[in-house]
Amino acid sequence: MLIECIPNFSEGRDARVIDAIAAAIRAVDGVTLLDVSADHDHNRAVMTFVGDAPAVEQAAFAGIATAAQHIDLTRHRGEHPRIGAADVVPFVPLRGATMADCVHLARRLGERVGAELGLPVYLYEEAATRPERRNLADVRRPRYEGLRQRIAHDPAWTPDYGAARLGKAGAVAIGARQPLIAFNVYLDTDDARIAQAIAETVRESGGGLPALKALGLRVAGQAQVSMNVIDFRRTGLNAIMRAVREEAAKHGVGVTHSELVGLIPRRALLSAALESLQLPPETHALILEERIGNMMGDFQEITFE
Amino acid sequence: MLIECIPNFSEGRDARVIDAIAAAIRAVDGVTLLDVSADHDHNRAVMTFVGDAPAVEQAAFAGIATAAQHIDLTRHRGEHPRIGAADVVPFVPLRGATMADCVHLARRLGERVGAELGLPVYLYEEAATRPERRNLADVRRPRYEGLRQRIAHDPAWTPDYGAARLGKAGAVAIGARQPLIAFNVYLDTDDARIAQAIAETVRESGGGLPALKALGLRVAGQAQVSMNVIDFRRTGLNAIMRAVREEAAKHGVGVTHSELVGLIPRRALLSAALESLQLPPETHALILEERIGNMMGDFQEITFE
Repeated sequence: MLIECIPNFSEGRDARVIDAIAAAIRAVDGVTLLDVSADHDHNRAVMTFVGDAPAVEQAAFAGIATAAQHIDLTRHRGEHPRIGAADVVPFVPLRGATMADCVHLARRLGERVGAELGLPVYLYEEAATRPERRNLADVRRPRYEGLRQRIAHDPAWTPDYGAARLGKAGAVAIGARQPLIAFNVYLDTDDARIAQAIAETVRESGGGLPALKALGLRVAGQAQVSMNVIDFRRTGLNAIMRAVREEAAKHGVGVTHSELVGLIPRRALLSAALESLQLPPETHALILEERIGNMMGDFQEITFE
Repeated sequence: MLIECIPNFSEGRDARVIDAIAAAIRAVDGVTLLDVSADHDHNRAVMTFVGDAPAVEQAAFAGIATAAQHIDLTRHRGEHPRIGAADVVPFVPLRGATMADCVHLARRLGERVGAELGLPVYLYEEAATRPERRNLADVRRPRYEGLRQRIAHDPAWTPDYGAARLGKAGAVAIGARQPLIAFNVYLDTDDARIAQAIAETVRESGGGLPALKALGLRVAGQAQVSMNVIDFRRTGLNAIMRAVREEAAKHGVGVTHSELVGLIPRRALLSAALESLQLPPETHALILEERIGNMMGDFQEITFE
């Protein structure tokens, strides 16, 4: 069984804090830390690790505890919306595990984080206990500062687990979901309002593309459309890129480059290639390495001289 | 050691002949037949199989012998240039093998085909013994009919192995090369001259894209630009598609769809995706399955529920 966990921490600048969290995760037996992506402007780090259910639960708990110890939300500044030190902790079934396994895991971890660390926990997406908490953007909307006003008095903000009060480490959103792709597109302007206007048009909540979330930001002096692709099988990267380019052209700007934050399922890139090359979906079956792997077992990649 | 062999046979219509050749290849121990693609208009079948050097040599010999027995070039009609029943037999190093291994294999097989089957053999590309035979298109230029006139009298056409006379089974081009991608793009016109004009502009020999060969044909009533991508690391599929679309637009036509013939190395599609999404080449390292495979060993693909 292989489950992926992709916690987002509200620290993208202090290497000592990022390293301490990574070390706590890596120290858990049976867990492999695949990736650490830290972003200075978002002031945020995204870690990716895999293992079986007990191992990823223990590693996620260790990461949350370490982040809560080192990160002070009352002093945190960054472009990205956030409610806590360990801001979001999603579980994703990769192989031999179901979504139900991940929902169970999210709730068990939430209970433990509430009880042992005293942090308020909100369950989201597939693990949500209330429909209005399915969407992570809704859970995070008040941000740390707004949540501090509401948590004790507004029943809509009573956490699923833990105390209804917000300390310096804030709250944690814990959930279960399908693989998500964090895809940022940079524009040849420094005007964040153009990125915001494009984001509002292309995202699902603005009547745009299904299963797409988007924000407009200014990062390193450049306007950025920062997107989460919730289900690339419903809306692929190629369609997203085309939509962003078209909207950008209406504002008289172009795309300079793009980036991923964290890792991407291979199929999302392969599907984008087939679409942009006008090859039929059956072409997936013509990939040499997959054909060899299916017929002969383990085969990762051709080695070129 | 894994070597790939991708023989092209001059029969794309008679299933009994195609099946007989495939069965002869499949019967060799240690060989896995990955793919059989037959095309009615080209009247041509492309088979892909892998194994170690002795196994692929034996299977290639069996395929050539079976094709020579069943296919009569004096009665063959098809859109594609050809010189023999087993028209082209290339070897490609996939893993644990070098190009030198494949050159050695091509020459050993050539000697055996000449001696045991009496067919004229021309060594091409990396296995060529003369610079003017490196390019397969040059070897195949006279086609079966023209080669029959020249082979006995013109020293330029003396084969590397076998008799200098052409029977009904024709000649065989045997070579060693890097993975090649056979990529066909269809236009929304039935005018093959437009496909020919586009092919002449985009291919390397016309001053177009490096490492690209192209022909213009009419296939199933539709104009087709039929291309061989010799080295996708020099010219990727995305650049080719863009060039074909631009040239097509100058003729007032568009691209309806495209297709691959045979198999494709996964990296060629991944690179096309990164280019069309304006993602940097380092993004290859962010593919989840490759990261897991590198860190934990065998991992082919995420399974989606």
